[in-house]
Amino acid sequence: MKQGITEKVLTIETKTKVIDVIQSIAEKKFNAIKRFLEGEEFKEAIIFGVYLWGNLVAQKLSGYAENIYLVDIHEFMKEFINTNAKFLSLNDLKLKMMKNEVNPDLLIDLTGLGGVEPEFLAKFSPKVAIIEDPKGVFDTEIYELDNTDERAFYLLNKAEKIGLLRTYRKAKVSKTSGTMTLTIDTIVDSSKDIMALDGVLYAIPNLRYYEGILFHNKDVYKFLDEVSKPAITISSITDVSEKAEKILNKNIDLIHSFVDDVYKI
Amino acid sequence: MKQGITEKVLTIETKTKVIDVIQSIAEKKFNAIKRFLEGEEFKEAIIFGVYLWGNLVAQKLSGYAENIYLVDIHEFMKEFINTNAKFLSLNDLKLKMMKNEVNPDLLIDLTGLGGVEPEFLAKFSPKVAIIEDPKGVFDTEIYELDNTDERAFYLLNKAEKIGLLRTYRKAKVSKTSGTMTLTIDTIVDSSKDIMALDGVLYAIPNLRYYEGILFHNKDVYKFLDEVSKPAITISSITDVSEKAEKILNKNIDLIHSFVDDVYKI
Amino acid sequence: MKQGITEKVLTIETKTKVIDVIQSIAEKKFNAIKRFLEGEEFKEAIIFGVYLWGNLVAQKLSGYAENIYLVDIHEFMKEFINTNAKFLSLNDLKLKMMKNEVNPDLLIDLTGLGGVEPEFLAKFSPKVAIIEDPKGVFDTEIYELDNTDERAFYLLNKAEKIGLLRTYRKAKVSKTSGTMTLTIDTIVDSSKDIMALDGVLYAIPNLRYYEGILFHNKDVYKFLDEVSKPAITISSITDVSEKAEKILNKNIDLIHSFVDDVYKI
Amino acid sequence: MKQGITEKVLTIETKTKVIDVIQSIAEKKFNAIKRFLEGEEFKEAIIFGVYLWGNLVAQKLSGYAENIYLVDIHEFMKEFINTNAKFLSLNDLKLKMMKNEVNPDLLIDLTGLGGVEPEFLAKFSPKVAIIEDPKGVFDTEIYELDNTDERAFYLLNKAEKIGLLRTYRKAKVSKTSGTMTLTIDTIVDSSKDIMALDGVLYAIPNLRYYEGILFHNKDVYKFLDEVSKPAITISSITDVSEKAEKILNKNIDLIHSFVDDVYKI
Ligand SMILES: Nc1ncnc2c1ncn2[C@@H]1O[C@H](CSCC[C@H](N)C(=O)O)[C@@H](O)[C@H]1O
Ligand SMILES: Nc1ncnc2c1ncn2[C@@H]1O[C@H](CSCC[C@H](N)C(=O)O)[C@@H](O)[C@H]1O
Ligand SMILES: Nc1ncnc2c1ncn2[C@@H]1O[C@H](CSCC[C@H](N)C(=O)O)[C@@H](O)[C@H]1O
Ligand SMILES: Nc1ncnc2c1ncn2[C@@H]1O[C@H](CSCC[C@H](N)C(=O)O)[C@@H](O)[C@H]1O
Repeated sequence: MKQGITEKVLTIETKTKVIDVIQSIAEKKFNAIKRFLEGEEFKEAIIFGVYLWGNLVAQKLSGYAENIYLVDIHEFMKEFINTNAKFLSLNDLKLKMMKNEVNPDLLIDLTGLGGVEPEFLAKFSPKVAIIEDPKGVFDTEIYELDNTDERAFYLLNKAEKIGLLRTYRKAKVSKTSGTMTLTIDTIVDSSKDIMALDGVLYAIPNLRYYEGILFHNKDVYKFLDEVSKPAITISSITDVSEKAEKILNKNIDLIHSFVDDVYKI
Repeated sequence: MKQGITEKVLTIETKTKVIDVIQSIAEKKFNAIKRFLEGEEFKEAIIFGVYLWGNLVAQKLSGYAENIYLVDIHEFMKEFINTNAKFLSLNDLKLKMMKNEVNPDLLIDLTGLGGVEPEFLAKFSPKVAIIEDPKGVFDTEIYELDNTDERAFYLLNKAEKIGLLRTYRKAKVSKTSGTMTLTIDTIVDSSKDIMALDGVLYAIPNLRYYEGILFHNKDVYKFLDEVSKPAITISSITDVSEKAEKILNKNIDLIHSFVDDVYKI
Repeated sequence: MKQGITEKVLTIETKTKVIDVIQSIAEKKFNAIKRFLEGEEFKEAIIFGVYLWGNLVAQKLSGYAENIYLVDIHEFMKEFINTNAKFLSLNDLKLKMMKNEVNPDLLIDLTGLGGVEPEFLAKFSPKVAIIEDPKGVFDTEIYELDNTDERAFYLLNKAEKIGLLRTYRKAKVSKTSGTMTLTIDTIVDSSKDIMALDGVLYAIPNLRYYEGILFHNKDVYKFLDEVSKPAITISSITDVSEKAEKILNKNIDLIHSFVDDVYKI
Repeated sequence: MKQGITEKVLTIETKTKVIDVIQSIAEKKFNAIKRFLEGEEFKEAIIFGVYLWGNLVAQKLSGYAENIYLVDIHEFMKEFINTNAKFLSLNDLKLKMMKNEVNPDLLIDLTGLGGVEPEFLAKFSPKVAIIEDPKGVFDTEIYELDNTDERAFYLLNKAEKIGLLRTYRKAKVSKTSGTMTLTIDTIVDSSKDIMALDGVLYAIPNLRYYEGILFHNKDVYKFLDEVSKPAITISSITDVSEKAEKILNKNIDLIHSFVDDVYKI
């Protein structure tokens, strides 16, 4: 908190950083997976999609599976990985598959919209499969593009148990369940709430187009640097730091993640 | 518009830049002033407050006043000026006043919350005075801090005509009339509207804490560089560029500026 | 449109009535069913749940099925029916079932939250089944209470084709897909939009607790009378009738209904 | 709280009635007046505008003024009055004025948009005058129609002290400060907040076009009957009565009323 543009006005940066919001969401998502996997153990887990929380899943799964593969279509995604999980590019994986070297009993697909093909998933015979459903509040085009149900269908007669990982904000509008979408909407909505506090002149959601830094510039370090910035900057007459933090937490608490069982006969 | 994080998703940057929104607001404000001054001519105009649109006022007033002073408490603000207007720091001005070298017939005070003292304004005897009212939608603390009425009061028995410049967004919440506040709120609200369009995954208001760059780092060039970025970055399945531009324009159109006459007996 | 509380203010009632909104929603829902049933023909259809649009389904289905039963737990619901469909109370139905007199090849369950038991549905062997999913935007308790998936599951190995009827508002928050919920939210949100129009003082969503009139007072005629009132009353300086109608239509257009295929092996 | 449309769903009516919201607003407004009048005493007070809270002002002023007139253009408004205040129709008043029988030292004008003419106010010479400013959040037409400043101007060289009574909702949109506008917006906004609570299916703002009942039908008793209904009806899985009441109170607390001194030389 420092003096703002005149001595009557303060500048406040939230202690909560963008990465903290991302982290909270990733943990909610992983906890939903954990509840679904409760009691099960695996020899080999394969996770599709490193961005934005595949690495965290790999990290946390280490107690549940002996061997973990993290697969991504983009080679540079391997820089995100700081676990024992083995990174495989999609090509690496295909080679290994041809040699029959991959045989996961747990499959987790986080690739979402435009991600892995349903037919490709059909090449695996996991005991348990979890597919992240990217859909949020209804949108004609997103619902049309989405093929979560098809992906589940292709695994239906193989897996013992199939779950759809869903993540929503309670009574709020987000168009997808993507960690980035939920992070942005949580921070923008929080900044609207903060702006309504007594004494606040304005609140700036401190966001960049992070996916450009990553997918266009392939600059993982710049990405990590940018998401380490305070989530919101506030111009205010009074010190609203604590209230702002509470508002951010309240908005994070609106996010709920759970795995829906796909019923099978 | 380029491919986004997968080939199914586009990244769209609005053609409208942050500076375009600032510029539109500044022009609305100046037009309100122009309507109020209609038919009058001045020898010497003094404008208090360079940031964020004092320079534009000076520029546009050049047809109406022979001599224009732009005064700011911050020396580095002079770098903003690209007109014939003479920049004076507050100290320069005080020196000139002691030597009786300043005698404005038009006084425009844009300094807002925590700006010039009412008693200081009382030292001038302009024919016409315009004071920018910083208040937006009701806020207990901002309304308490504001002393626009007092500033007008101190000029009341001197000026022939006193006006209060007010700027609001129609049926929308902004806490102040400050160009920066209105810019931020316009861009954030637009990004919420854009997010609701068919096919849009998320929309990022592309904002920084510009006032820190300026008032803390005193870096006018970095400030100008940052406000030259696209106002909003959009992740979408379909090309919503035109709709996004329309939404921004619609939100800019909600901003109205006018000068309220202070009635005198 | 008449003069309001002073001669400067108008009172405007929307031409759109509450029942018109209900009707539009019911038609969207039926069209989704029609698309799903395309090409099929049925001997006997059974519809569970008269309120709020079971009667419309029965009406419109008359071309597709020879014999139509409309079942409701509440006897007085029969007063809603103005078609050839046969009304059966739940008890009537159970008697008929004991006598093996019911054998629907099309089953439509509109009863939603707290409606028919999944196990009860299992007693039927329709060729096609459609179950209305009552869930809207995420809510912990509603999602917990809902048993749509279970209902589908119990019919899974019998029906050739099972569909889940879903209805949402695009990028808007409604907690259920219930016709009443969507009607209320559409009218309240429209009145907020109308309130923002130039010249409007306030807009009143003209709503009652209709379900009390119906389920507590069992007064179908009073219910029909109340929903025949204008959806919104507006107090305004200028005539905004046309704009208000457009806003209502735009909000109705946000409602989308579709049947999701339940994939089966 | 009773069972709703199925045994799984409750119907909840808020304890807070529409009239309670009206009453709270009227009291906030009167307290603002009281703070402004602090220490003063009056012989004769005249209040323009009975609807919607003129009677309350008259009631509460009884300690401060010996003689109180309540004036309204509508004769039937007298039925609202339950104090010692004398009701005068505008015609009654004009007659009394011709006979020099009215000489208020306190004038309160609550008539707002399209109310008393500024020139008419000029016929009085009160020691203190208070004019209710009807403007809320910016609206081009309302701001154009409003003549509060003119009304103040016509009293400026007569009254010792002139105040403008202003009432706003903090960081919320209401187009006027009218008690009815604020009541409607408070109840509609509360019902939106309540709808977001866990377990709530929908919330109905229980509003009628009260001003029609009053100004068109001139039925004061029906009006009072209607505003005595619960403010909001809620359909919910869980009992949210207490939370609903808190939300209503929080929204009422957003309303702030104060008298702005009109500076004079
Ligand atoms: N066919 C494919 N195989 C493997 N990885 C893929 C893929 N298609 C896309 N991906 C990867 O999957 C990720 C999609 S973004 C996934 C976001 C994630 N569901 C979240 O909520 O955070 C990216 O890392 C992308 O590179
Ligand atoms: N006492 C004073 N004299 C001169 N300039 C002052 C001042 N106090 C503050 N300022 C300057 O006034 C400006 C205040 S910010 C003004 C914002 C402007 N009303 C808008 O809407 O964009 C800054 O440039 C600040 O440096
Ligand atoms: N077990 C049961 N059998 C038959 N009808 C039932 C039932 N339980 C509830 N109902 C009826 O089902 C309806 C539930 S309300 C249904 C609302 C509907 N889905 C809509 O969107 O409009 C009521 O008419 C109720 O009386
Ligand atoms: N010229 C006039 N003289 C006296 N009363 C008038 C008038 N014009 C309108 N009125 C009355 O003034 C009231 C206007 S409505 C006033 C609403 C009030 N400000 C509030 O916030 O509740 C009505 O009672 C109307 O009948």
